[in-house]
Amino acid sequence: MTRPLIPDSLVQEEGGTIALVVMDGVGGLPHPETGRTELETARTPNLDALAEESSLGMLTPVLPGVTPGSGPGHLSLFGYDPLEFLVGRGALSALGVGFELEPGDLAIRLNLATLDGEGRVLDRRAGRPPDSEARAVVERLRTEVTPPKGVELHILHEKEHRAVMVLRGEGLRDDLQDTDPQKEGVAPLPPKAFRTEAEPTQRLLEELLDRIRSVLEDEDTVTGVLARGYALYQGFPSLEERFGLRGVAVARYPMYRGVARLVGMESAGEPDSDAAAVELLGEVFGRYDFHFLHFKAPDARGEDGDFHAKVEAIEAVDALVPEIRASGPDVLLITGDHSTPAALRAHSWHSVPVLLHSAWARPTEGAFSESAARRGDLGTLEAKYLMSLALAHAGRLQKFGA
Amino acid sequence: MTRPLIPDSLVQEEGGTIALVVMDGVGGLPHPETGRTELETARTPNLDALAEESSLGMLTPVLPGVTPGSGPGHLSLFGYDPLEFLVGRGALSALGVGFELEPGDLAIRLNLATLDGEGRVLDRRAGRPPDSEARAVVERLRTEVTPPKGVELHILHEKEHRAVMVLRGEGLRDDLQDTDPQKEGVAPLPPKAFRTEAEPTQRLLEELLDRIRSVLEDEDTVTGVLARGYALYQGFPSLEERFGLRGVAVARYPMYRGVARLVGMESAGEPDSDAAAVELLGEVFGRYDFHFLHFKAPDARGEDGDFHAKVEAIEAVDALVPEIRASGPDVLLITGDHSTPAALRAHSWHSVPVLLHSAWARPTEGAFSESAARRGDLGTLEAKYLMSLALAHAGRLQKFGA
Repeated sequence: MTRPLIPDSLVQEEGGTIALVVMDGVGGLPHPETGRTELETARTPNLDALAEESSLGMLTPVLPGVTPGSGPGHLSLFGYDPLEFLVGRGALSALGVGFELEPGDLAIRLNLATLDGEGRVLDRRAGRPPDSEARAVVERLRTEVTPPKGVELHILHEKEHRAVMVLRGEGLRDDLQDTDPQKEGVAPLPPKAFRTEAEPTQRLLEELLDRIRSVLEDEDTVTGVLARGYALYQGFPSLEERFGLRGVAVARYPMYRGVARLVGMESAGEPDSDAAAVELLGEVFGRYDFHFLHFKAPDARGEDGDFHAKVEAIEAVDALVPEIRASGPDVLLITGDHSTPAALRAHSWHSVPVLLHSAWARPTEGAFSESAARRGDLGTLEAKYLMSLALAHAGRLQKFGA
Repeated sequence: MTRPLIPDSLVQEEGGTIALVVMDGVGGLPHPETGRTELETARTPNLDALAEESSLGMLTPVLPGVTPGSGPGHLSLFGYDPLEFLVGRGALSALGVGFELEPGDLAIRLNLATLDGEGRVLDRRAGRPPDSEARAVVERLRTEVTPPKGVELHILHEKEHRAVMVLRGEGLRDDLQDTDPQKEGVAPLPPKAFRTEAEPTQRLLEELLDRIRSVLEDEDTVTGVLARGYALYQGFPSLEERFGLRGVAVARYPMYRGVARLVGMESAGEPDSDAAAVELLGEVFGRYDFHFLHFKAPDARGEDGDFHAKVEAIEAVDALVPEIRASGPDVLLITGDHSTPAALRAHSWHSVPVLLHSAWARPTEGAFSESAARRGDLGTLEAKYLMSLALAHAGRLQKFGA
């Protein structure tokens, strides 16, 4: 029995508007020369002015020490315990390429691979083909592979040797063995069912993989595929069902629109710049209760290991803050889904500063930074509790008990 | 179903080395004249220099308000939820005298007691006999009591009137009534089984207690024993099974080597001084992944109620810090298993400062002290999460989700 985030039935249908601004990967580590993190280094006059009227705190994305991927990182911020609401790798891949998963869909990651004449794996990644080449192979599969009876088939290219396949049909299961043997020199494994109930899916996959092999027979490099990361998409309860919130996502990248769609948010569109995203937010603002705005650049520059570029990416978001505020949300949250310190060139487990602006904030001294946020009124809390605070500040939670 | 500390299968087998230094009972309370705790009073230049490059925080040993014994206090620090991994009092007693418990062993605490001619308890503690006298009685029991068929019997003296008895055999149970009536003037209680399955153990204990009574018949003071704290030792999953860590304990006192052994650590030896312990750490360092070093004095002086002596004990540990650092752990943790304020003369529930030193620390201003640690980057967290942080900083945890 999981502990509820909010005691039952406190959620009200009415209340103020909420905007959640995610500066992806915003948390950082100190620069060795200055002792200041990326956020502490950036000149962010707009965020700092906002911080002076806001409650500050630090969010633990999942649990202490646990580094989240983008899926769990965002689900936490949306008020979904990431240890309870698991998103399979295949499902995230499908979301990442913008595919609209429906409950019951089976999503499977595919490696384009090279097999030898006797069907043994020569290269698990087919020499990491360039995207154009890989896309052409995926296009062949898409047009030439007939799906087995009773299922709908979607095959989409991700990047280089990676593709994703989605089966839509009745009674599909995901408890089967990966066909990827994880090493070379051996044949792919059969997609063996782990339980009797999964045997129909096993037969269906065997048939499908046979057809794929036939199509690829005359290819030079990509002569097979390896399947793994089976994920039956179960569907999550929506933001509206759980919190009474009609939600909208404003995000440039499909992965983040996809995660938002997992919890029932609509997508406002596909803006092609951060400025366009903020403009789009202004256009749709108020037609929804909950508005999720995503900025990718701080994470991307952190993963590049470029401290200075990450500082600039943060400053670029700061410049957009006045326009975001102009939409007039009753509750404005600004944070990240995790830290991406340039020093680590990767997502990390470190806590992430959060700013909560509303008429009921308890401001403390200091700018929007790790050092001010850890002295903030919210203390350090698991990210999954942020939604509860947002609902409270929006006047959307009733009193608990009499 | 308990929430996992770390989501499944994130733990990697490879990564950096970890050293956990426990300054037993280090947390304290302010001196009424200065307002400074023992740790804040102590001159600790080495700890303070280390703190400037470390993440600081406060650990709640078990849960707010809960004062831990040494068993739960250390299990938490080793990453074992102390509410889930329970160590019975009898098992702790056996560990405390250096007995190597095996899964299935039944450990029982014994009070040496004085019974009158009619078998009623005259003194539950036999007048607190001096250790030499009590040891002689225990030695008689050890040589003269024949164990019932099918069990192996070990009886060991603890201190004064306290001893511990371990039965080793098949199918032993611990759900039986204590024979200690907790008052004088009445006869000891029978070791009645609480469930049918425990009746064989009941019969075995009755027989054994009869034999003990016969041996003690001609003694003057210790004319009986009272049994309590039955604990069937179940065996815990090891640090290696849970976290992929080969662990070693460097501890002067058997209790702490015993708690470490509970989670599969080896013992590096039996150093006879703190300086010898640190030297031993240096010798074994790197042959293991996880190194636990225990300093007893701050707790002992706290229990004495001697503020000044506890300050000196802390300063003595500080002097050893350079040699500990010289071993070169990738992650160095310094904390206590609980607070032992001199003002309380006992373990307490207060949070305990912790210092985490690694290449990925987020330092804040201030020395190693309660006042600096509560402003630290780690916030206040349950001690059971310290291991997750250590694993993350050692590069031993994979990302959660994509």
